[in-house]
Amino acid sequence: MKTEIITIGDEILIGQITDTNSEYIAARMNANGFDVVQITSIHDEKQQIISALNSAFLRADVVLITGGIGPTKDDITKQTLAEYFGMRLIYSNLVYQNILELFKTRSFVMNELTRQQAFVPENAVIFQNHAGTAPILWFERKDGKIAVSMPGVPYEMKMAMESDIIPQLHQRFDIQANVSKNILVAGIPESQLALKIANWENALPPNIHLAYLPQYGIVKLRLSGVSDNSLSLEFIINQQIAALTEILGKSIIAYEDISVEQIISMLLRNNDKTVAVAESCTGGNIAHRLTLLAGSSDIFNGGIVAYSNKLKISILGVKSDDIETYGAVSQQVVEQMAQGVFHITNSNFGIATSGIAGPSGGTAEKPVGTVWIAVCNKDKVVSKVFQFGNLREQNIERATQMAFLMLKDFIEEN
Amino acid sequence: MKTEIITIGDEILIGQITDTNSEYIAARMNANGFDVVQITSIHDEKQQIISALNSAFLRADVVLITGGIGPTKDDITKQTLAEYFGMRLIYSNLVYQNILELFKTRSFVMNELTRQQAFVPENAVIFQNHAGTAPILWFERKDGKIAVSMPGVPYEMKMAMESDIIPQLHQRFDIQANVSKNILVAGIPESQLALKIANWENALPPNIHLAYLPQYGIVKLRLSGVSDNSLSLEFIINQQIAALTEILGKSIIAYEDISVEQIISMLLRNNDKTVAVAESCTGGNIAHRLTLLAGSSDIFNGGIVAYSNKLKISILGVKSDDIETYGAVSQQVVEQMAQGVFHITNSNFGIATSGIAGPSGGTAEKPVGTVWIAVCNKDKVVSKVFQFGNLREQNIERATQMAFLMLKDFIEEN
Repeated sequence: MKTEIITIGDEILIGQITDTNSEYIAARMNANGFDVVQITSIHDEKQQIISALNSAFLRADVVLITGGIGPTKDDITKQTLAEYFGMRLIYSNLVYQNILELFKTRSFVMNELTRQQAFVPENAVIFQNHAGTAPILWFERKDGKIAVSMPGVPYEMKMAMESDIIPQLHQRFDIQANVSKNILVAGIPESQLALKIANWENALPPNIHLAYLPQYGIVKLRLSGVSDNSLSLEFIINQQIAALTEILGKSIIAYEDISVEQIISMLLRNNDKTVAVAESCTGGNIAHRLTLLAGSSDIFNGGIVAYSNKLKISILGVKSDDIETYGAVSQQVVEQMAQGVFHITNSNFGIATSGIAGPSGGTAEKPVGTVWIAVCNKDKVVSKVFQFGNLREQNIERATQMAFLMLKDFIEEN
Repeated sequence: MKTEIITIGDEILIGQITDTNSEYIAARMNANGFDVVQITSIHDEKQQIISALNSAFLRADVVLITGGIGPTKDDITKQTLAEYFGMRLIYSNLVYQNILELFKTRSFVMNELTRQQAFVPENAVIFQNHAGTAPILWFERKDGKIAVSMPGVPYEMKMAMESDIIPQLHQRFDIQANVSKNILVAGIPESQLALKIANWENALPPNIHLAYLPQYGIVKLRLSGVSDNSLSLEFIINQQIAALTEILGKSIIAYEDISVEQIISMLLRNNDKTVAVAESCTGGNIAHRLTLLAGSSDIFNGGIVAYSNKLKISILGVKSDDIETYGAVSQQVVEQMAQGVFHITNSNFGIATSGIAGPSGGTAEKPVGTVWIAVCNKDKVVSKVFQFGNLREQNIERATQMAFLMLKDFIEEN
């Protein structure tokens, strides 16, 4: 089944934002057995919308559109689609009630522009927006081809895709099954991994596709295929994964697409344990990524962002002599930080980072990108030094990811 | 001058990568006075490439193409473009020498596939790739319209754009200037803002375009236009901004596209002041966003992620009686958290959050999305309660943004 994506918004065409909506929709549609033929980004401009829609319908059965449906004057997608499909706009009390409901939980006041959001094309199928004021519109042509208009706000679009659009498309079309499985491999760089599994990869059945998706410290391998018979395809893929496990053993850290902090969270939860963090160069990012997980308060007591040396000493109990002798970015200091936060929070595990994120602050001996990481429990402390690159944001992300990988191993071994 | 971008590659259409090349090219072309009409992403497929090119040439004078020019079998852009422009492929010794030169600095060995890269369309203008093996190809039609084929590897494409393509386009075309200015407005929801500035917006000169770009707690307004005379256009836009300032006054927090934490960082730096954070529901995100800024150690001492009540009491000095009486999510507790972190870090400002990020933990009285935020200095503490939505990640982002906005106001007023 062929699909196209049209994203509408000046901000894409002037290069002010990255069009991440297309990536999300493309990935989800592929996962659901649709073939995405083309992605088109255009301005909030009536003739462009009509022309893009005409072209898309020449190639595809389903056209998914995002953007251009806010309350302001520059957003014209709804009006244009109504005209395109020959429908007039009518007032929908259901949509109005949905907006009122939404406003109740926030402290917004209804005004004329927002009220306009309750006008919808007469014969379109309407899905309520669960997180914003613009309804989701589903249009069907006489020949059965479909266009769906969704908000450009990423989380509103995602909620619409997951709760309504994908389920409706499955009801509407008989789609071939697209089966894919992810395997997370830690500690082996991509090219080395490719050599290590070359024989296995070359012997894969022709209908199974392998993709390498490297992330910091991890390579995600995705095996996928399309078939009329999803059960037999799944069986074949599982056989291949079993063979891969023989080769890679403990380097495989998960058989699903989850983050390292999710693995940690499960490990801690299953053992009724907790962790606390003392962060210098990662500046709160370890705590942030842990607390993005729902229910993290069960496994995370809290942490100290000890950016200044003073705080390392006064709160974490790092010896000021050691900071003077070895520097803040050192094994001695990072280990004391981990043990300090472990003690003051009364947790089962402690974790600490201290490094030079950049762009300045490096020396010949400790260049930008030098990061010490330590993990500890009541019995022991383990630490390691890493040398990352020159980019601040990447250094913070890499240090965070490596800290999680070290903690995962430490929890499993202790 | 109208431009289109075509990105070629299966990985975009299956949602495996985000197409960041389009964003880069769009931004650079806009900055150089080109109007990007459409961005199209297609598969490595001959008929699709030809059809996309035909469509693009109907609308644009310059078509910039990336991707599909690697050495492997699935890359067919070069062959397809040669055929499209009626050129045969000929061997270029210059390109071959460039590849040899490149391989010298790496430990690659020339093979048959790479040698093929030295074959180029006979009458295309060739620019050498400074970082890869595939040459950059510039095609010109009889009517003067231009197509350029560039590598899909982002840094190879960027080097080609900066060193050859943009300078050549400037030589080739007499380009109109594109002027745009951003205004950040805080504290007024998008639809309310649109009503408030409706008269001003309706009276804008026809050559000035206004876009609303809402973010959490902020609406970014962008005024832009294209003109032969960039100075006069800039003058007109500045006049409009002055008129807008009369209407919005202090709701305008910046006249450039920066984040609230960047504004705070400048305010603190200019006054030689520091801030510390005590985070409960934001879980480290405030610290994380502050420390993403280079040089943040000058203005940020550190913070406490006091996720558990125990830490709120033991480290921040919150009274346990108050937690029992009013709950952790309360004015009393959040104010004590701000004052606590202010004192223990010896900072000039303190900021604290306590709320229910969700998805669970809400009550009838304090539903999910309830967040208390406090800011303080040595003289006073100010706090406010917010009611956000049901989504954990959004609640964390919103609370972070609102905390920054409150802190910005507090610093300015005190």
